[in-house]
Amino acid sequence: MTDRIRARYLIETPASPARAAAAMAGEQSTGTFIAVPGETPEIHRRHAARVENVVELDEHDEPALPGSRGGSPFHRAEVELSWPLENVGTSLPNLLATVAGNLFELQQLSGIRLETLGLPPELSRAHPGPQFAIDGTRRIADVWERPIIGTIIKPSVGLTPEETGLLARTLSRAGLDFIKDDELMANSPHSPLEPRLAAVLAALDDAASETGRMPLYAVNITGEIDEMLANVDRVAEMGGNCVMVSVNAVGIAGLRAVRQHSALPIHAHRNGWGALTRYPLLGYSYDVWQQLWRLAGADHLHVNGLRNKFWEPDDSVLASARAVLAPINGGPPVMPVFSSAQSAEQVADTYQALGSTDLMYICGGGILAHPDGVAAGVASIRQAWDAALGGVDLDEHASTHPELATALATFRDRHDRS
Amino acid sequence: MTDRIRARYLIETPASPARAAAAMAGEQSTGTFIAVPGETPEIHRRHAARVENVVELDEHDEPALPGSRGGSPFHRAEVELSWPLENVGTSLPNLLATVAGNLFELQQLSGIRLETLGLPPELSRAHPGPQFAIDGTRRIADVWERPIIGTIIKPSVGLTPEETGLLARTLSRAGLDFIKDDELMANSPHSPLEPRLAAVLAALDDAASETGRMPLYAVNITGEIDEMLANVDRVAEMGGNCVMVSVNAVGIAGLRAVRQHSALPIHAHRNGWGALTRYPLLGYSYDVWQQLWRLAGADHLHVNGLRNKFWEPDDSVLASARAVLAPINGGPPVMPVFSSAQSAEQVADTYQALGSTDLMYICGGGILAHPDGVAAGVASIRQAWDAALGGVDLDEHASTHPELATALATFRDRHDRS
Repeated sequence: MTDRIRARYLIETPASPARAAAAMAGEQSTGTFIAVPGETPEIHRRHAARVENVVELDEHDEPALPGSRGGSPFHRAEVELSWPLENVGTSLPNLLATVAGNLFELQQLSGIRLETLGLPPELSRAHPGPQFAIDGTRRIADVWERPIIGTIIKPSVGLTPEETGLLARTLSRAGLDFIKDDELMANSPHSPLEPRLAAVLAALDDAASETGRMPLYAVNITGEIDEMLANVDRVAEMGGNCVMVSVNAVGIAGLRAVRQHSALPIHAHRNGWGALTRYPLLGYSYDVWQQLWRLAGADHLHVNGLRNKFWEPDDSVLASARAVLAPINGGPPVMPVFSSAQSAEQVADTYQALGSTDLMYICGGGILAHPDGVAAGVASIRQAWDAALGGVDLDEHASTHPELATALATFRDRHDRS
Repeated sequence: MTDRIRARYLIETPASPARAAAAMAGEQSTGTFIAVPGETPEIHRRHAARVENVVELDEHDEPALPGSRGGSPFHRAEVELSWPLENVGTSLPNLLATVAGNLFELQQLSGIRLETLGLPPELSRAHPGPQFAIDGTRRIADVWERPIIGTIIKPSVGLTPEETGLLARTLSRAGLDFIKDDELMANSPHSPLEPRLAAVLAALDDAASETGRMPLYAVNITGEIDEMLANVDRVAEMGGNCVMVSVNAVGIAGLRAVRQHSALPIHAHRNGWGALTRYPLLGYSYDVWQQLWRLAGADHLHVNGLRNKFWEPDDSVLASARAVLAPINGGPPVMPVFSSAQSAEQVADTYQALGSTDLMYICGGGILAHPDGVAAGVASIRQAWDAALGGVDLDEHASTHPELATALATFRDRHDRS
């Protein structure tokens, strides 16, 4: 137990790493570019950020980022800093201003990435955390001992509310556990939230009267703060059971405000995340990012998927999912959401690598573009998970399950197409 | 006039730029990784994002970002896309999800940066914009025909509320127009907002009874949404005249919520901005960023400063200041805030390059570390601006103004120190 905030960075610097670390600690606590009268030894002793650790790594001839002061070699290092909680208080935006504020701009650095964050329990306790997490989500969806299988309304843009309702009816009848709006579909003139929600909920009710099961429907409530809080109320009043938020676009304080106002699970979509993480010597690791959103209240967090349509390699995707599944400071794990060009073909590898069924497995095209239709698409995913959970080889299972066989034939070769 | 949202990107791709642009347009509107049944020609015609322009630039042997699919050469290009407003609606978070969402992750791209954004007037009109902007800020500060000269409470961390009040009294008596909290000083156990505000306001009132002038004091209200709205109320009730927000930490929706609740100017601090912009082939340009925060309600926007303590070159700083001073869609310009290792020594160059007095010129160490004290520090900045505005050479002016002479001797050589 500690009352210090700890942050570990990957840095690159033309100076010595120890000197760069000292500059980082100064900038983010009691120092500025020149000594000022009020920085007394007592203030320094009590409030200065501390350099906990510096581990030198390799050297590079070229700087990873422009604008640093000094020439080659550029030394990479891991640097750990810590701050007393009394410097910062417990709010998440002020935590960010301290551990991820001006540091990214320092001319002493030619690379700076926040890799891990360790928070005092008192700070964690100041935040609501997930309201539903894994068990609460399973309870609403009534899905146990296997992943929650879902899809995205596609096309993402252009369907009217009525057309969206018709599609939702088809999806629900096909046996999906979870349906979500696309992040491009929130509350626009061509698809306003309220009529869309009404049409979808009517369709789901209708299908549930046949199937006996009501899927989760994550309504994209993303918008301005007042708009989101009104949307949350409207979703609950109309009988909805889940909301989705584009969390990077809304901000950490915005998500927390939604969480405190909401009695529904929050599905956190990470669009925009690439800008914060894709360059290896700048920005944030997913491990830090997911920790913050969990404190703010996310119940489900997107982690991309194996062999996705994006840039991210599989080992990074799996590390993200494992981070989301690890408890933090006594806070529960939440649901990792596998999504992005997912289909039956990645199921066995996903399960083998993760060793858990606590995940949401979301296929857009991987269900909607199944040649034999949506029901066959859903069946193919269920069959693939049955095989994985039963320890049966995927292709062997496909030999007696035609929907799976067709899915594998359709989706396995798409990575070879442009 | 147009009802389309337009965004121009700098991209890099191992494919042909035209093909990459088509993938971008598909991902961010009607397409996904594979054709789905509902994407009708009618939907495509009405809702697909349009590739407006592709300008091929140079080629590179190595990719700027990891994870793209395909080998060298990597083609750089400028790509302009547009979307009908009816796809998106007017909310800022949903605008971001469309123009700056999953695009950063596409494997077709090895570089992607949002450079410019053109918004339909209808979208701009849906947002409050700045409540005070330049004229309103000048009216409160009662400063005309020259920059607003300010300082930052330093040390940033460690002063008690009472000590902060004492420092504010000294600063105010020394003739400053503007005093701001540091971004590291918001509402922490060692410096809670309310007693700090009370101590500072009492000090400023006291000094004003001698000087006849009340400076602007930007209180750092950064925190969770409900906390910020309560803080805004408290600042207004207690007689404060300005608030500061760490905008990246709070999020665009958060700042807009503050703006709608506030009757005070909003000083937008950009800490964290480096993570979004420092790598040239990822993230955002300042031009895009400042446009969004102005719509959300920022009255003052940090632009860094010449010969700053950060990585940014001077031409970039000046381009940012010019962007903040340009009207957008009929919305007024706001105050560019020059800050970061500023002192008397950058004044002449700042004025010569910008050709405007509509700016805030903020010196922390550049005032507080003046060898002859704070009053001499403030005098040195005023003298430097007098010289610049009067067309007098800085060193010539210093020969008859000892505070300026000492400031130049103190601060000019600091760039040669480590």
